[in-house]
Amino acid sequence: MTKENLVACHNRIKPFIHNTPILSSSLVNNLVNAEVYFKCENFQKTGAYKIRGATNAIMQLTSEQKEKGVVTHSSGNFAQALSFAAQSLGVKATIIMPSNSPKVKKSAVVEYGGYIIECEPTIKARQNTADSIVKEKGATFIHPSNDLDVILGQGTACLELLYEQPNLKAVFCPVGGGGLIAGSALAANYFGNNCQVFGGEPFEADDAYRSLISGKIETNEKTNTIADGLRTQLGQHNFPIIQKHVKQIVRVSEDEIINAMRFIWERMKIIIEPSSAVTFAAVLKEKSAFKNKKIGVIISGGNVDVNNLPFNI
Amino acid sequence: MTKENLVACHNRIKPFIHNTPILSSSLVNNLVNAEVYFKCENFQKTGAYKIRGATNAIMQLTSEQKEKGVVTHSSGNFAQALSFAAQSLGVKATIIMPSNSPKVKKSAVVEYGGYIIECEPTIKARQNTADSIVKEKGATFIHPSNDLDVILGQGTACLELLYEQPNLKAVFCPVGGGGLIAGSALAANYFGNNCQVFGGEPFEADDAYRSLISGKIETNEKTNTIADGLRTQLGQHNFPIIQKHVKQIVRVSEDEIINAMRFIWERMKIIIEPSSAVTFAAVLKEKSAFKNKKIGVIISGGNVDVNNLPFNI
Repeated sequence: MTKENLVACHNRIKPFIHNTPILSSSLVNNLVNAEVYFKCENFQKTGAYKIRGATNAIMQLTSEQKEKGVVTHSSGNFAQALSFAAQSLGVKATIIMPSNSPKVKKSAVVEYGGYIIECEPTIKARQNTADSIVKEKGATFIHPSNDLDVILGQGTACLELLYEQPNLKAVFCPVGGGGLIAGSALAANYFGNNCQVFGGEPFEADDAYRSLISGKIETNEKTNTIADGLRTQLGQHNFPIIQKHVKQIVRVSEDEIINAMRFIWERMKIIIEPSSAVTFAAVLKEKSAFKNKKIGVIISGGNVDVNNLPFNI
Repeated sequence: MTKENLVACHNRIKPFIHNTPILSSSLVNNLVNAEVYFKCENFQKTGAYKIRGATNAIMQLTSEQKEKGVVTHSSGNFAQALSFAAQSLGVKATIIMPSNSPKVKKSAVVEYGGYIIECEPTIKARQNTADSIVKEKGATFIHPSNDLDVILGQGTACLELLYEQPNLKAVFCPVGGGGLIAGSALAANYFGNNCQVFGGEPFEADDAYRSLISGKIETNEKTNTIADGLRTQLGQHNFPIIQKHVKQIVRVSEDEIINAMRFIWERMKIIIEPSSAVTFAAVLKEKSAFKNKKIGVIISGGNVDVNNLPFNI
């Protein structure tokens, strides 16, 4: 996971991803009392940063591995990302999805060329089904966040942000499975100018916060958060990177998430998903530390179900 | 309303407005079977193009007029735009608003420094109240759409679009009071390369469509459309320009508006208001005429009440 690895990864995946725009807003800057730069991965292909890691992981396979395809289990953005990336690269992707996944998510996977196998909605069933595909077809399992090639790929969003804004004092990311924040921490470490990385996490799924305190990977006992992308937990590949390079995890309430999401929608006129609102809510909570400084925010994605929004609550 | 007037207007207002981004999307291009360029005035100050015309109209006043302030009647985007523009230019703005205007709209006007006078929710009461302010304070009345300086200002959005994309075969605009489409038609006429201008209008408020047929300004008998910005009607200053330079008005249903809005929100991850969705719905309806051509779409604004969205219908 060297500086050179990260740059090579970026060069490798560049033709297959968008270099997404970096937006700023005087309204936001006035509110935060800082210069805030939003790296807008909601405008990324498939609507989220996940395509970066998925693309890198597939491109690192041998021809023989590529021929046998890839498999993952995900009901979220990584399912769509791996399907799309595999299709772009002429590789077959099998996606293990819980049988109770929303129809809209299944449709998106099919639209991007993924082949769905349904399983019981338990973590054990997901893993067992994935294992059987690996055995049966010789397919390569690619984990959505706990995979070094995936982590490197996800770090390229922060890398692009730092190429354009080299003097950020901090970068804020959401923390779910830990792939994005670990990759961002590597990018900030190698390319930042004393740039610290902060994670935003819901109180309702605060495994990363507790893991950093206890020094071992903690599990979520509840995941009752609107930030559906952050209900997952850290893994043994990304946790050590997070321990070493992440400054702090900031926890936010469900109300803070919804208010942050409403603010960005209403004022910046862009659609961000709840997991990205977590990140901006964390910025608002810690804003006193960044007065008149430059900070970056990774807007992780914009995949929401517009028929089921939280604003009327 | 010469070419030189339009350029002078643009130079005049440039320091006070955003040159908004022009977005495109391969998903949209595939759907429409054309190259579609969205001029994103939802990212404009106050969330809509209206600030352009408001700024130009105020800047054209004499010092004496500026001292006495400006007045308009509007419950929509022009109320906010005139308030904001007046504040930027150190001029006092009085906004006549119907007493039943939503609180969120009144708050926005106050936030931008406008002074609200409420009146009965009838067109007559609006006009009478505005007249009395003109008499009493010597303030200058600025109409939201039927004013030559406003029309020129609104045309600068299309001008900026054509500066970046000089070979558009068509530009689509929404049609409400007629200021934006009249200004766009002038811009396309002076700066386009055989660029035709099309209007999008709801069936439920199709005064412009009927006016072009009858050759005189028709009124809306009903305005039962979700596109709240398009419930107004044409005026004697913009109608002749529209008659002369607009190719066609395309009418769309409420379902078509909502589906177009959902598509842009879900796929482009930007927030557009129903009036802008009318425009994209018109593009979808007429797409067979533009196969493999370049076309422009003016996204007029992004001001929506997120507590009251149409998607659950």
